[in-house]
Amino acid sequence: MSRTSFANVDCGVAQAVNQVGDKWALVIVRSAFLGLRRFDEFSAHLNIAPNVLSNRLSQLVENDILYKKTVPEDGRVIEYQLTAKGHDLYPLILFLNQWAERWMPPKDGPRLEMSDRRTGNPIRTLQLLSSDGDQLGSRDVAVRSGPSGSKVMDHAREIVANRKLKANK
Amino acid sequence: MSRTSFANVDCGVAQAVNQVGDKWALVIVRSAFLGLRRFDEFSAHLNIAPNVLSNRLSQLVENDILYKKTVPEDGRVIEYQLTAKGHDLYPLILFLNQWAERWMPPKDGPRLEMSDRRTGNPIRTLQLLSSDGDQLGSRDVAVRSGPSGSKVMDHAREIVANRKLKANK
Repeated sequence: MSRTSFANVDCGVAQAVNQVGDKWALVIVRSAFLGLRRFDEFSAHLNIAPNVLSNRLSQLVENDILYKKTVPEDGRVIEYQLTAKGHDLYPLILFLNQWAERWMPPKDGPRLEMSDRRTGNPIRTLQLLSSDGDQLGSRDVAVRSGPSGSKVMDHAREIVANRKLKANK
Repeated sequence: MSRTSFANVDCGVAQAVNQVGDKWALVIVRSAFLGLRRFDEFSAHLNIAPNVLSNRLSQLVENDILYKKTVPEDGRVIEYQLTAKGHDLYPLILFLNQWAERWMPPKDGPRLEMSDRRTGNPIRTLQLLSSDGDQLGSRDVAVRSGPSGSKVMDHAREIVANRKLKANK
């Protein structure tokens, strides 16, 4: 999507960012969740240049977030729909909305209200939970290398340790 | 961060994307959660051009995601630390990592293991929950306009309704 690729960076966040860390990709995925499917629809909905839209749709297809499908009624019409991997981005899109509503709230109240279709009850804020369901903050989480390890984390920890060492001299 | 600004788009997702929908911004925030604080540290850790790093740090400060602080021991040294709004991005960073581990798993197993610091138990996958704690998918959620409304959603729904209308003709 841009010239810098994080595809080979040994970090899950970088791997994900490489596929969805782009304004247009995220907004296209949001619009796909709102039901848009066709090039013309995304084009009418977003203030986006056709070549940029075309590029982002191709990248999203290449990354298996959208898939292309021809319409049964008319084989010339192509639709872009969310794959299972794309559907799995729903919490990300919701989180972005919830974060914006918390930190940049519109003055008249929320733009959208989301509820459980079965019960009508509001859905919960996305948050980090322990295995027993307690809410956790970033400082409550211990992170250690797993079986594949992470050179990225090891390197960051080395940098932090060096700073602390120098400060204590 | 790029030429297109979504700052005035009437959509929470676009508002958030305007501030964090950028590869480098997301990777810098990840590195801040890993404990990095100084320009030199981010620079040593990320394969990033100094002008790009400088630009992204300024934007993150402007958007109140990082704040600048001088080090007590040496007033010439500036550190960038996460604000409350920045700390509130932790679920987003974790989600990106979990999504990558689910869909692009490293062959030897997870890179990182995250646990509750108090109990040592693994943390839960970030997921959408109903008010009674049931797991919800994107199709289980009903979205309607809130008090501030969303022209973006209304417009998307109109496009979808028009497509369906034409298909039924």
